[in-house]
Amino acid sequence: MIRSAVYHDDTVETVDVTDDDGDPAADDLRRVRDTEGVSWVDATAADAHELRHVAEAFGVHSLVVEDVVNNVRPKVESFEEYTFALVKEAELTRGDTPFHEEVHDEPVGLVVGDDWLCVLSTEPIAAVDAVWDAVARGDGRLLDRGADYAAYRVLDRLVDEYFEVLDRIETTIELVEEDVLVSTDIGTLERINNVRRDLLSFRKVTWPTRSALVVLARGDPEQIRPETEKYYRDVYDHLVEIVDLTETYRDLTSGARDIYLNTVSQSTNEVMKTLTVVATVFLPLTFVVGVYGMNFEGGPTNMPELRWAYGYPAVMVGMLAVAVVMLAYFRRVDYI
Amino acid sequence: MIRSAVYHDDTVETVDVTDDDGDPAADDLRRVRDTEGVSWVDATAADAHELRHVAEAFGVHSLVVEDVVNNVRPKVESFEEYTFALVKEAELTRGDTPFHEEVHDEPVGLVVGDDWLCVLSTEPIAAVDAVWDAVARGDGRLLDRGADYAAYRVLDRLVDEYFEVLDRIETTIELVEEDVLVSTDIGTLERINNVRRDLLSFRKVTWPTRSALVVLARGDPEQIRPETEKYYRDVYDHLVEIVDLTETYRDLTSGARDIYLNTVSQSTNEVMKTLTVVATVFLPLTFVVGVYGMNFEGGPTNMPELRWAYGYPAVMVGMLAVAVVMLAYFRRVDYI
Amino acid sequence: MIRSAVYHDDTVETVDVTDDDGDPAADDLRRVRDTEGVSWVDATAADAHELRHVAEAFGVHSLVVEDVVNNVRPKVESFEEYTFALVKEAELTRGDTPFHEEVHDEPVGLVVGDDWLCVLSTEPIAAVDAVWDAVARGDGRLLDRGADYAAYRVLDRLVDEYFEVLDRIETTIELVEEDVLVSTDIGTLERINNVRRDLLSFRKVTWPTRSALVVLARGDPEQIRPETEKYYRDVYDHLVEIVDLTETYRDLTSGARDIYLNTVSQSTNEVMKTLTVVATVFLPLTFVVGVYGMNFEGGPTNMPELRWAYGYPAVMVGMLAVAVVMLAYFRRVDYI
Amino acid sequence: MIRSAVYHDDTVETVDVTDDDGDPAADDLRRVRDTEGVSWVDATAADAHELRHVAEAFGVHSLVVEDVVNNVRPKVESFEEYTFALVKEAELTRGDTPFHEEVHDEPVGLVVGDDWLCVLSTEPIAAVDAVWDAVARGDGRLLDRGADYAAYRVLDRLVDEYFEVLDRIETTIELVEEDVLVSTDIGTLERINNVRRDLLSFRKVTWPTRSALVVLARGDPEQIRPETEKYYRDVYDHLVEIVDLTETYRDLTSGARDIYLNTVSQSTNEVMKTLTVVATVFLPLTFVVGVYGMNFEGGPTNMPELRWAYGYPAVMVGMLAVAVVMLAYFRRVDYI
Amino acid sequence: MIRSAVYHDDTVETVDVTDDDGDPAADDLRRVRDTEGVSWVDATAADAHELRHVAEAFGVHSLVVEDVVNNVRPKVESFEEYTFALVKEAELTRGDTPFHEEVHDEPVGLVVGDDWLCVLSTEPIAAVDAVWDAVARGDGRLLDRGADYAAYRVLDRLVDEYFEVLDRIETTIELVEEDVLVSTDIGTLERINNVRRDLLSFRKVTWPTRSALVVLARGDPEQIRPETEKYYRDVYDHLVEIVDLTETYRDLTSGARDIYLNTVSQSTNEVMKTLTVVATVFLPLTFVVGVYGMNFEGGPTNMPELRWAYGYPAVMVGMLAVAVVMLAYFRRVDYI
Ligand SMILES: [Mg+2]
Ligand SMILES: [Mg+2]
Ligand SMILES: [Mg+2]
Ligand SMILES: [Mg+2]
Ligand SMILES: [Mg+2]
Ligand SMILES: [Mg+2]
Ligand SMILES: [Mg+2]
Ligand SMILES: [Mg+2]
Ligand SMILES: [Mg+2]
Ligand SMILES: [Mg+2]
Ligand SMILES: [Mg+2]
Ligand SMILES: [Mg+2]
Ligand SMILES: [Mg+2]
Ligand SMILES: [Mg+2]
Ligand SMILES: [Mg+2]
Ligand SMILES: [Mg+2]
Ligand SMILES: [Mg+2]
Ligand SMILES: [Mg+2]
Ligand SMILES: [Mg+2]
Ligand SMILES: [Mg+2]
Ligand SMILES: [Mg+2]
Ligand SMILES: [Mg+2]
Ligand SMILES: [Mg+2]
Ligand SMILES: [Mg+2]
Ligand SMILES: [Mg+2]
Ligand SMILES: [Mg+2]
Ligand SMILES: [Mg+2]
Ligand SMILES: [Mg+2]
Ligand SMILES: [Mg+2]
Ligand SMILES: [Mg+2]
Ligand SMILES: [Mg+2]
Repeated sequence: MIRSAVYHDDTVETVDVTDDDGDPAADDLRRVRDTEGVSWVDATAADAHELRHVAEAFGVHSLVVEDVVNNVRPKVESFEEYTFALVKEAELTRGDTPFHEEVHDEPVGLVVGDDWLCVLSTEPIAAVDAVWDAVARGDGRLLDRGADYAAYRVLDRLVDEYFEVLDRIETTIELVEEDVLVSTDIGTLERINNVRRDLLSFRKVTWPTRSALVVLARGDPEQIRPETEKYYRDVYDHLVEIVDLTETYRDLTSGARDIYLNTVSQSTNEVMKTLTVVATVFLPLTFVVGVYGMNFEGGPTNMPELRWAYGYPAVMVGMLAVAVVMLAYFRRVDYI
Repeated sequence: MIRSAVYHDDTVETVDVTDDDGDPAADDLRRVRDTEGVSWVDATAADAHELRHVAEAFGVHSLVVEDVVNNVRPKVESFEEYTFALVKEAELTRGDTPFHEEVHDEPVGLVVGDDWLCVLSTEPIAAVDAVWDAVARGDGRLLDRGADYAAYRVLDRLVDEYFEVLDRIETTIELVEEDVLVSTDIGTLERINNVRRDLLSFRKVTWPTRSALVVLARGDPEQIRPETEKYYRDVYDHLVEIVDLTETYRDLTSGARDIYLNTVSQSTNEVMKTLTVVATVFLPLTFVVGVYGMNFEGGPTNMPELRWAYGYPAVMVGMLAVAVVMLAYFRRVDYI
Repeated sequence: MIRSAVYHDDTVETVDVTDDDGDPAADDLRRVRDTEGVSWVDATAADAHELRHVAEAFGVHSLVVEDVVNNVRPKVESFEEYTFALVKEAELTRGDTPFHEEVHDEPVGLVVGDDWLCVLSTEPIAAVDAVWDAVARGDGRLLDRGADYAAYRVLDRLVDEYFEVLDRIETTIELVEEDVLVSTDIGTLERINNVRRDLLSFRKVTWPTRSALVVLARGDPEQIRPETEKYYRDVYDHLVEIVDLTETYRDLTSGARDIYLNTVSQSTNEVMKTLTVVATVFLPLTFVVGVYGMNFEGGPTNMPELRWAYGYPAVMVGMLAVAVVMLAYFRRVDYI
Repeated sequence: MIRSAVYHDDTVETVDVTDDDGDPAADDLRRVRDTEGVSWVDATAADAHELRHVAEAFGVHSLVVEDVVNNVRPKVESFEEYTFALVKEAELTRGDTPFHEEVHDEPVGLVVGDDWLCVLSTEPIAAVDAVWDAVARGDGRLLDRGADYAAYRVLDRLVDEYFEVLDRIETTIELVEEDVLVSTDIGTLERINNVRRDLLSFRKVTWPTRSALVVLARGDPEQIRPETEKYYRDVYDHLVEIVDLTETYRDLTSGARDIYLNTVSQSTNEVMKTLTVVATVFLPLTFVVGVYGMNFEGGPTNMPELRWAYGYPAVMVGMLAVAVVMLAYFRRVDYI
Repeated sequence: MIRSAVYHDDTVETVDVTDDDGDPAADDLRRVRDTEGVSWVDATAADAHELRHVAEAFGVHSLVVEDVVNNVRPKVESFEEYTFALVKEAELTRGDTPFHEEVHDEPVGLVVGDDWLCVLSTEPIAAVDAVWDAVARGDGRLLDRGADYAAYRVLDRLVDEYFEVLDRIETTIELVEEDVLVSTDIGTLERINNVRRDLLSFRKVTWPTRSALVVLARGDPEQIRPETEKYYRDVYDHLVEIVDLTETYRDLTSGARDIYLNTVSQSTNEVMKTLTVVATVFLPLTFVVGVYGMNFEGGPTNMPELRWAYGYPAVMVGMLAVAVVMLAYFRRVDYI
């Protein structure tokens, strides 16, 4: 989908830049680009073919489009007539089985010229739509403040979405932190690893974005005017915070994993204590009853107690006493 | 709450900068700012609305207020007419359950002009109150030494509070270090993780503060005069020490965790030894008494010992001997 | 094998640079080098002796050849008349036993002059052959765009092969991730270590290549013309991505290893629970039947229940009750 | 204690710089400072009050004294008329219980002027005393070579003391390495943690010292003359070595901890093997004797073997055979 | 041992630089140094006294000799008239018990002047002897190419010896990797730790050497001529490779340790399975035979099966069935 808006004389005007087949029209695009005032072409949810057409009309190098199409790492590159920033829209999506949510990212190419902005993507980008709607709703001042400011607005929105992703990851971590205290279920460890994997993927989006944005925050490219720098610094600050949070969350999952692994050891320890108590109480008692089950016979030296009138009660009481003593001991050493 | 003090001709004068409704009065604020002498506006415990008013009156960029309101990461930014330092007041607060204390931080925005200081916060800041009281008590020399020196005093106080936080964390670590030697309670591991989490949060406050303060310690911003630089270096030194201590404490918690995890293994080992001793002693003996419980009969080859007059005492003595030998062996290999 | 192509006046011409014995002919090589137009000598799958001959004819330092022959670490070195890039072709090869695949690498020396390119290797290099075929198929424009562009094409191909290696490693990791959830087989841990070892070897290829390519991406050497820089930046971007993926894959194997190690602990825990349930149910029951196997006799106090008409059914029912209660308890604490 | 020496005309002269009460005399100090020749004031083992007096007399900033009194992190700071190096004397002291030795450090402030050296400390510093004794013994050449050289001598001595600390830590590590191979005592793990803690404390002394000394080794401050630089480089080299050794020792303690933790697992493994052998041998045998303890009666199909003349010897031989076979199997799989 | 060679007019001449007692003769040394042509003094396997004499004669600073004598960390230092490189000869030596091989290093001081080279060491250095022999064998060209080239040759040889050390360490690692798969012997863990310790020591030799050599590879010192730089770069490349391999080997030992630790867990798991199978099969059966060993009597309700003609065979068959079912179950869950 290709659409375009031009701000001129305090008015925002939407311009059709497609031919009859809905394909991008090079002439229209070039006119939009060269017209006085700030112009914006939104080429998101477009196929690679359309993107190449738009880029050619705007005099944007073909490698720029290839980077967008191939969804390479976030980066900023300065060309003579424009600055190209490749960033990502990120969202958490459910995977093939429950609890297997994954960080999904889509490329957003921001090509910032002196008085034009061209946004390229093969996917629909919610952040771009939102800013487009703001312009459409008559927020003319948005384009009025320049192409670099419009690009900042898109970036700002994308970064806000990053915070949403982190919020959802944080929720999962909190669930997992409750889990590990009560469960030795191996699924818990899988869930912890899933979160770690998400943080890994998310870091792959945010780390290079931070490195790339520092260039814009310093206002290095000609297209970023001094009065816009501080907005880019603001986005940069947010990204530093996001990268920080990502590291912290990773540390939290490590803590959760430690507790989980310990819960298993702990459980084994408890199980062993139970077994030891039962065996320690009953093995000696079974031995005793075994003694009086022996068949010795034939004289006063051979098992006279079997014939003693109170032999049975005495043995039973004796065994009870042994059992009580042992249980008391086990209670004292905290086995039961 | 907005209040203001001006130092001029060796006197400190408190100036009312609010209108009848207690809201900040732009005119008063501007007069305080432009008056000869060093002036200070304390806009802490203020709501976002008030902060925006004060900032506007002082010609401070709106993003500065947003950074304070959103409590973003500590940082220093230089503007043309002022330098903005965002730092944090930190304290340990009890969480929802006992032993769940958490590092709580509140933003403090220090805007340092040539001869004015504006402190912005949405929360009451104890460190700012303390310095304000010093000024109110007539410590005129404090403002006399310039806006940058007054800002240093606030910073110095905040950093002293950081040391208090670390002291309390250290106390908790010492408690935990005693715990781990005696307990296999899973709660101990939770406590260790709580401390680690606190150190993590605290590091998030102190690390960026250190990075930000290096700019002031080098005296880069125009508003930090050469004669004040060394005070900022002093604060910077303290922060380096705090960051160091944080790392050390983290290492200590790792050591405590290792000991704890080992205590569990150790306990399982002890439990198994007990079980093994009991089973090893009684299983053979029970076998022996089982032998003499068999019902073989009918000839001299079938269990003649059952009919031997001293069969029973001999077996009992034999079993006792076996038990004694086994127990001696287990003592020698340190099982009991 | 030594072969050569020259681009001049919009035509590509293959030139024989070997003498009658198939050895490199110094005169021919020098003529190819000095002829007007862009020339390319492909000296791959050549022995050290041939490489030294070619280098001498081209005025390339002998250490360059030694680096290729000794297959040292990837690097870029600038000489006065040429730039030397040593890179590697990488592939996964099966080792001596199944599942012991290994990263195998072969040196590719790219010597880029002003209007000539000389590719040196002791091994056949698929990437070089592919680009040679493109030239041979009449893709004249390839040489037309200069020696630096031709070198880029080889690099680009090599890096594509790196992605293939990573794809195969990823497949192995996925297999291993499924394994660890179901198996406590020690072979699984070996497989995990094999993958880690592959990633280690692969990192040894890609890390220094990335460091070396940054020099070309910045266009530092004289032989890399401004219009080609962006292609080198493209290759550099790919390498950054590869290095990133390598780190991520390493993290995944760590997660797999954790799960594996836990699977063993978990299994031990399960085994102990089984044992504990069996022992806890049968040890007391065996004790009970042992009691009624005792031979006390001779009076109403000695085991009257043996002579009670319902003694046997009562004991059996009692034991059943005990067993049922214990099993219910074990089910409640999740032992069975 | 304040004492002072002046080197002039090839003679070293001790100068009294205290008044009648033993307090520092500002006039004397200033005279010593300004006299021709190299002068040295040793203000170690002094209280904070005295240090402030000395500093004031020498025109040294009050923050310098505060840094010494507060024993902050080692550092080097350049002032206009002098260079201030804060370093530490380190020693291992016994803690409250045996084996709880701790790294104790004391601040040493070296203030190096053009032709004067002022050493500040609240504690007696053995290294300073040693160098003072060398001067007192007539080693005039020491002061003759300048204030920077005298400061180097103190530093060199302090660093030699660091090596002694490391030597003692190494001895402890060697003891611990022997321990871990034979003991599963939890005290061993505590000892390992104690050493790690010592290394942590020691690193806190040496790391910042190394960072600080690089400034002096480069000869940056005006007070360090070119001909003395190489001596500071020498001290710097030693510190690099010390920092290296500290890291190596830390790695060794990690290795010791791994072995220790494994010793516990190993012991549990051994214990389980013992139990398994005993249970596996005696449970089946006890079953067999239980069989022949059954009371079946009344016909040729019910336990005829009980009435077979060789039933008893046959069963006994059979059980012996079973036991021998099982023990042989357990020996083969290395359980016993 | 002090010996010397001078290259002049295409001839190499050995010059005696010792007096009648075999001590270094200052006059001879100075003459060798100042003679036209490239001269080399080999003062290896010399005592500290001799080294100091040689250094004095050559005008080399006394700290240089002290660094060699004290065997400090590898480094490069530039002096006005010469460049001093301290490197190490490394070899693996057997320790006090078998398998306790250790990395042993000896200092080699290379002092490179404009047209002279002075090699200092307290130990015999095989690498120096080898290069000396090359010169003695008439390889005049070696000295012909300058003092810096001769120093390179020594370095190159030392680095080749590093590769030999690594080869032997690799062999040990391969042995250990085979060990860990079959053995739970604690000696295996010791062996792994020994290798890690060797790699640690070796890294202490190679890391600083790499850092030092980068200075020579860049050709910074005046004594390293542009035409020799590339040789130093070659040595530097080798060192980078060595440092890389050291890290890789360390990673391999970590993998081996993981497998080892897991082998112990695995073994405990197997042992527990054996125990559980035996106990689970025989405890119920023993209970059953215990039941029929009870002495209930006196009525049709009391154990009628004891008097049933097929009671015994029925019980035996029943127990066999139970055992078979349980064993089948255990085989299915992979316990046996
Ligand atoms: Mg691409
Ligand atoms: Mg989208
Ligand atoms: Mg925002
Ligand atoms: Mg996931
Ligand atoms: Mg900002
Ligand atoms: Mg902000
Ligand atoms: Mg507060
Ligand atoms: Mg302070
Ligand atoms: Mg505090
Ligand atoms: Mg907490
Ligand atoms: Mg300071
Ligand atoms: Mg671990
Ligand atoms: Mg080589
Ligand atoms: Mg190939
Ligand atoms: Mg490509
Ligand atoms: Mg492999
Ligand atoms: Mg690039
Ligand atoms: Mg690209
Ligand atoms: Mg990384
Ligand atoms: Mg201080
Ligand atoms: Mg002392
Ligand atoms: Mg020394
Ligand atoms: Mg200690
Ligand atoms: Mg040095
Ligand atoms: Mg030295
Ligand atoms: Mg030394
Ligand atoms: Mg030697
Ligand atoms: Mg070599
Ligand atoms: Mg060793
Ligand atoms: Mg090189
Ligand atoms: Mg080489």
